[in-house]
Amino acid sequence: MTVPNSISIEEVISELKLVLDKKNILTEYEERFCYAYDATAIGDELYLPDVVVLPENTEQVAQIMKIANKYKVPVITRGAGTNLCGGCITLKNGIVIHTSKLNKILSIDKENLTCVVEAGAVVEKLQQEVEELGLFYPPDPSNLKVSTIGGSVALSSSGPRCFKYGGTKDYVLGLEVVTAKGEIINVGGNTVKNVTGYNLSQLFVGSEGTLGIVTKVTLKLVPLPESKQVMLVFFDSIDDAAMAVTDIISHKITPSTLDLMDQKTMDTVEQFHPTGLPTHYDAALVIEVDGIADTISVQAKQIEEICYKNNSKDVRIAKDKKEADEIWFARRSAFGAVARMKPNVITEDAVVPRDKIPQMVKAIRKIAEKYNLTVCTMGHAGDGNLHPNFSLDLRDHDEHERLEKAVEELFDAAIELGGTLSGEHGIGMSKARFMNKVASEEVLEYMRLIKNSFDPNNILNPGKILIK
Amino acid sequence: MTVPNSISIEEVISELKLVLDKKNILTEYEERFCYAYDATAIGDELYLPDVVVLPENTEQVAQIMKIANKYKVPVITRGAGTNLCGGCITLKNGIVIHTSKLNKILSIDKENLTCVVEAGAVVEKLQQEVEELGLFYPPDPSNLKVSTIGGSVALSSSGPRCFKYGGTKDYVLGLEVVTAKGEIINVGGNTVKNVTGYNLSQLFVGSEGTLGIVTKVTLKLVPLPESKQVMLVFFDSIDDAAMAVTDIISHKITPSTLDLMDQKTMDTVEQFHPTGLPTHYDAALVIEVDGIADTISVQAKQIEEICYKNNSKDVRIAKDKKEADEIWFARRSAFGAVARMKPNVITEDAVVPRDKIPQMVKAIRKIAEKYNLTVCTMGHAGDGNLHPNFSLDLRDHDEHERLEKAVEELFDAAIELGGTLSGEHGIGMSKARFMNKVASEEVLEYMRLIKNSFDPNNILNPGKILIK
Repeated sequence: MTVPNSISIEEVISELKLVLDKKNILTEYEERFCYAYDATAIGDELYLPDVVVLPENTEQVAQIMKIANKYKVPVITRGAGTNLCGGCITLKNGIVIHTSKLNKILSIDKENLTCVVEAGAVVEKLQQEVEELGLFYPPDPSNLKVSTIGGSVALSSSGPRCFKYGGTKDYVLGLEVVTAKGEIINVGGNTVKNVTGYNLSQLFVGSEGTLGIVTKVTLKLVPLPESKQVMLVFFDSIDDAAMAVTDIISHKITPSTLDLMDQKTMDTVEQFHPTGLPTHYDAALVIEVDGIADTISVQAKQIEEICYKNNSKDVRIAKDKKEADEIWFARRSAFGAVARMKPNVITEDAVVPRDKIPQMVKAIRKIAEKYNLTVCTMGHAGDGNLHPNFSLDLRDHDEHERLEKAVEELFDAAIELGGTLSGEHGIGMSKARFMNKVASEEVLEYMRLIKNSFDPNNILNPGKILIK
Repeated sequence: MTVPNSISIEEVISELKLVLDKKNILTEYEERFCYAYDATAIGDELYLPDVVVLPENTEQVAQIMKIANKYKVPVITRGAGTNLCGGCITLKNGIVIHTSKLNKILSIDKENLTCVVEAGAVVEKLQQEVEELGLFYPPDPSNLKVSTIGGSVALSSSGPRCFKYGGTKDYVLGLEVVTAKGEIINVGGNTVKNVTGYNLSQLFVGSEGTLGIVTKVTLKLVPLPESKQVMLVFFDSIDDAAMAVTDIISHKITPSTLDLMDQKTMDTVEQFHPTGLPTHYDAALVIEVDGIADTISVQAKQIEEICYKNNSKDVRIAKDKKEADEIWFARRSAFGAVARMKPNVITEDAVVPRDKIPQMVKAIRKIAEKYNLTVCTMGHAGDGNLHPNFSLDLRDHDEHERLEKAVEELFDAAIELGGTLSGEHGIGMSKARFMNKVASEEVLEYMRLIKNSFDPNNILNPGKILIK
């Protein structure tokens, strides 16, 4: 128990009972156990929260924060828990706020292309609802079937379509936030253009629940593209694949997706679910174009030519929805396929300038070899964002140690190439110790001052992003 | 003289002389007089800086800040001084840093679609240089012929193309900033995706020189569109024009520009420079589409049909560059034309949700009538961003007072309609007193805490955005 001043958690819980319905307070060991982890593989430690609460409205969140602030108990906000950086791990015990009952899509404004949703609304559900109205919410984190808008905002998440459409941060217009003190504040607004004082919305985006608890989000929407076309292109060398990416862009084509899978990824996917994916190529690109129907067939043809010119031996353009779904299935099941190999998968998230992708893929392979680790690399080639998936058994302490060393070398390599630690997964607990590789002590100190301004008692998701 | 602790400005200047070449320190009254104003009409007060300095590199900026911090002298950073919110006015005297000698375009990376420029680089010059390489920097503030990237970042400025492409904030990847203490820090990075800690880049964007001095900017670029087409469409009623805008967007067309001019604006422009612009219509839209050549002619045709369907009587599609230039000349000369009518123009910058444009235009007209003021309204209809230009003589104290009342009512009307104070011009000194209309006391207090974290002695552009 880490609640300070010898206050027992029972006192906190008895105060919570004055605010929340009994069914929305989980205190049993078995219940709390379910919240002792997130999607991050973190070894064999158990991070058990003291209590889990499920508020049903913003006012309840504010009341919870007032209690937490009074007793100086840590509060960890959690959506679907799909993050990959230990963002929802209750390092110092405390209260987990689960947003599953704050899941309403409150309004969709067809005239002004905006919507307002509660933090716990599921990304795919929002996408389906707006698409029925001919609108589009492009950010597509891989876990969108379950992951929440609040989680997307907290982690500033993106996805394959980021290359053309940008990530979550580019769609956030305004936020309702509960502060550490339990105030309910509104930042940003309803309009795309808004320059009234410091951009607090973008400060909360990506702050991983360490500055405040996002309860409602006003999002920008765009018109739904008329049509789309996906293609799968194979290359004998990763260098050729990277050259093709650059060449496509220099032809003024902006695909919605320019994703990459390496040989090991394809091999693993094909073993997991055989669909005749060739496994002898060094790399494949998953390319999707969207927009006006006439244009995209022209663009797909152009892309085909560019890929052949860059030594592709095999360009497959999906002829129908079934073929398109198959291509996306291969791309999206990569993580799951890797997870079948050994008990754990550690997915990293390095970013490099786009033209450094071949060097980075080679560096990843070399590091994996050096530390005798299995790695499948995929990612968003258009954005220079690579996800090496390390397949391992974290109970094997030697393998775990080798991984730790490999990950650090991997980030050093990314930074050496002009890149950084994370493109879309965030820092959380797993990369906090590396922050000093990308930010000077002065910059970290300004981040600490900001943290202290919003959360002087350090009760909001402590130990994440910044190591005090 | 407002330098505290009875320190004379001579001491400050003698320290500055140790850092800067003599020619880069302006102390004569006539020299300082040139920096006593910016593009904002501010009445007849004289805001004279104590000294103006022209640093030639970041290290000099850092040295200047160390001196300013030691003597607690205000520092106001100034690019071209084209802002419209009194952002460069030296309210408390102090040092003006003019960035005209920090004007280099340092690198353009064709492979990764990025560039690095010094803060004083002129927007149009950057645009020309990148366009020669087939690249595009879309943000287009009206004053781009002289205004600087540093000013664009400080004010988070946009322009007509924001509807499709977004504003300056959407292109800033990383910043080099000199802090109040004189540290040189780097925030953000080189890559589009980057979620490593709090988003300090976006905190500096739009902070109007109150949190730090931006010295270098890493910007995202996009491929230059192959072709573009501009059209001018007239309507008998502003409601029809607004309906046409909504209808165009609902047809999944995303023009690069969807600008609006009201009757009074057209009338004034035509008087200023007669080109046969019809002056009896209630409103006109300036619509530009860009992209692949084949697509844009199809889109222009579609837009024409939509506009006729929404009761336009007159749709003019530019047949060649000359006609296109004429349309843009009319749009861009609106401010200048209004300026010819009386000695001063006050340009406001309200934003409302797009479908509230007719109501806002009518509210503006009604308020102008109530206070017997001349107003020409134009703006970016796609973004709901309206610029009422009040033409007046600020030496006429009665007219000045009526303006002050009108402006406040105008913002109340915008906020009532779900909008806000500024879309792209910023807050500066002229709107600081209205901040409490759009931000609660709690939000303002968090902004103050942030200001205090970066600038505890309140020497960076004091009195702007926040009234202490």
